[in-house]
Amino acid sequence: MAQNTAHKPEAQGDDAPRGHVLSLPLANDQPDREPHNYERWLITKLMRMAGSPPIRFRLWNGDTIEPDNEEPQFTLHLNDHKALYALVANPNLAFGDLYAAGRLDIEGDLPDLMETLYRSVHAARQRWPRWLDALWRNHNPRPTGISEARENIHHHYDLGNEFYGLWLDKAERQYTCAYYEHPDNTLEQAQLAKLEHVCRKLRLKPGMTVVEAGCGWGGLARYMARNFQVKVHSYNISREQLAYARDEARKQGLDHLVTYVEDDYRNIEGQYDAFVSIGMLEHVGKDNYPALSELIKRSLKPNGVALLHSIGRNRPMLMNAWIEKRIFPGAYPPSIGECMSICEHGDFSVLDVENLRLHYAQTLTDWLDNFNANQDAVTDMYDEHFTRAWRLYLAGSIAAFRAGSLQLFQVVFTHGDNNQLPRSRQDLYSFPATPEGV
Amino acid sequence: MAQNTAHKPEAQGDDAPRGHVLSLPLANDQPDREPHNYERWLITKLMRMAGSPPIRFRLWNGDTIEPDNEEPQFTLHLNDHKALYALVANPNLAFGDLYAAGRLDIEGDLPDLMETLYRSVHAARQRWPRWLDALWRNHNPRPTGISEARENIHHHYDLGNEFYGLWLDKAERQYTCAYYEHPDNTLEQAQLAKLEHVCRKLRLKPGMTVVEAGCGWGGLARYMARNFQVKVHSYNISREQLAYARDEARKQGLDHLVTYVEDDYRNIEGQYDAFVSIGMLEHVGKDNYPALSELIKRSLKPNGVALLHSIGRNRPMLMNAWIEKRIFPGAYPPSIGECMSICEHGDFSVLDVENLRLHYAQTLTDWLDNFNANQDAVTDMYDEHFTRAWRLYLAGSIAAFRAGSLQLFQVVFTHGDNNQLPRSRQDLYSFPATPEGV
Repeated sequence: MAQNTAHKPEAQGDDAPRGHVLSLPLANDQPDREPHNYERWLITKLMRMAGSPPIRFRLWNGDTIEPDNEEPQFTLHLNDHKALYALVANPNLAFGDLYAAGRLDIEGDLPDLMETLYRSVHAARQRWPRWLDALWRNHNPRPTGISEARENIHHHYDLGNEFYGLWLDKAERQYTCAYYEHPDNTLEQAQLAKLEHVCRKLRLKPGMTVVEAGCGWGGLARYMARNFQVKVHSYNISREQLAYARDEARKQGLDHLVTYVEDDYRNIEGQYDAFVSIGMLEHVGKDNYPALSELIKRSLKPNGVALLHSIGRNRPMLMNAWIEKRIFPGAYPPSIGECMSICEHGDFSVLDVENLRLHYAQTLTDWLDNFNANQDAVTDMYDEHFTRAWRLYLAGSIAAFRAGSLQLFQVVFTHGDNNQLPRSRQDLYSFPATPEGV
Repeated sequence: MAQNTAHKPEAQGDDAPRGHVLSLPLANDQPDREPHNYERWLITKLMRMAGSPPIRFRLWNGDTIEPDNEEPQFTLHLNDHKALYALVANPNLAFGDLYAAGRLDIEGDLPDLMETLYRSVHAARQRWPRWLDALWRNHNPRPTGISEARENIHHHYDLGNEFYGLWLDKAERQYTCAYYEHPDNTLEQAQLAKLEHVCRKLRLKPGMTVVEAGCGWGGLARYMARNFQVKVHSYNISREQLAYARDEARKQGLDHLVTYVEDDYRNIEGQYDAFVSIGMLEHVGKDNYPALSELIKRSLKPNGVALLHSIGRNRPMLMNAWIEKRIFPGAYPPSIGECMSICEHGDFSVLDVENLRLHYAQTLTDWLDNFNANQDAVTDMYDEHFTRAWRLYLAGSIAAFRAGSLQLFQVVFTHGDNNQLPRSRQDLYSFPATPEGV
């Protein structure tokens, strides 16, 4: 497993400050020189390393290079010869940067292409020599201390409430995996079902107290207050999100039950019947897991229940370089074993783990559809670069969940000596979690 | 975490060969000398180290020593002065040996006393200096290579089918945790519900093939064949159990669907739709987890489902010395993290973890009731020593599950790239797992 040492900047294609989407010069229409033979050879070689996926390359002069064995299902345009060298030098980082800059383009379904690539590289990787693994490298995530966490979160979550409003669900603006009880549920239904499913797992009862670490736009806290009459303290360090959350709670007359606290989760105080954290663990950083465990230990009443909902892995692995650098600075999705280490450290008893991997693929598909339907508005807010980068991030995430390189774990646990346990999980399923008429 | 090095025999009270219940001379009626003052002091000291549980000591001459703070809830008789020294020198091992030999006796409910002790020691332990932890030591488990595993399993599981028949459920003779959907379910109902619950988690369909590692008396295999029309290969190295299993399958006309194989799980061949192992992982040994993982990897079809059901821990910890030595040679219940390491090693995707801890306390309570009702028959089969040892083992296990020092994990997982996943766990709960009219 990689050490969590400080990040060293990449040598190539990395002149933009870390955490910015814009990084390479935009594509231009200047005519490029003819490709060399060894450049064709390089592409063939690169594709073989990647397990020979069914991808045709179209070079800057219009020439094509067909895949090794299969009919091509996708065409990848390389729009200038320098793009090729960037791609070969650091495929994980450069693919995203080149796509965002319009120097690499895709014919065919973007999530499908990414899934094909992930599966192909994952299978090929088992047979790679070590030096090749180094080429396909990712880097250690940015640190996630209190001040760095603020920067990391600001970079992503403070992009603007209006922007996220374009493609997240309208009701509770959930920027985490939804729960599609039925395949034809809408995003709106599935996000409400997720909130319901989480509340049921926590076995909430009226009058209980809940603390939430990382609350996004505050939807879960309002849902809990509205539907379970519990008191919620929700912590977040994204100012933009909190402004929205407080405003909504006031409008809905829930501000006597819900308190949004602008502070780092590490500063949580008090003891509660439930501890919940949806989609924050990815930003916590491995080094902070013992402290998180101790925090939950002291924040949870003797018979309290904790729930962590997080993107995860089947085994420890660094985040994709481009995603960590341009989209989610500091992000590290823990492996299932690393999740469990949080519970082991606190001598907690793990009651329930559920994996909602394919639900996240479906959630992201709905988000991408909304995003694409609003892409002109996004480009007006930011620019073409940004729109392309975010399209790739969403499409690549769909692919990662479909191909099994990312998982979504919900982990429920309690203090080790708590005997007030539900007899079974039957009560989670006694009636549909999906609301009617949404 | 302890290293898995070879076991060194204890210095004290350990003259019997490892893995035998009988170890110390039986209590006799010879008058013992009067207790010394420093012996009283030693008991007071020992109880303070153990967190001052509400236990009164009655010494060999009738004198009593009251607990520090509370009213006594239990009385512990020490029937000779040498018993005291054995207890002080190695409490974990000697408590069981002395009780089995009748040199230590208990007034009060045995499981309640043990639970009180476990909770008290667990709480006190957090404040102990290191040298005291060494006193309350356990030892590394016996090795579990192919030939040692045979001895370990023979020691426990070949005690005789008649013996186990006295206190296990009649229908399927399940020597593992049952599943009590309702608190008033009988052992018979709860064991059948457990089998049903496991089959549902595996999503069995008629015509599928299943391989089972460690099948006990073969009840799960017959249940699967009878109720799900699947073909099962079940591996076991206990000859006594297999004779019973084959006989039952023949009687029930299921021998065209069920094959019982007398071989080590490591020799499993073929590929199956499901891999299941109920209550064997405790005997596998940590060193063999990577090999087990690789075995499951190659035995499972691309969309196959695996289920491990095992006693476990909240964090890594050695088995109680007496249990490992006298009852379950080679046993080591893995922590939840160690369970997950099996999945991580094979790049499996963990779909579902359920903890049935309190169900095992209830199962053991039913077993102990049956055992006590048949104790004269047990003593006729073996001797008083044996009966007392097994009563303590069952009572101590109830206590360990109640106090949270043992857990019961059911872990469901698949190959990392399998997308034929159930949308939710709703189907596990669509109708009761408990059969009617049992």
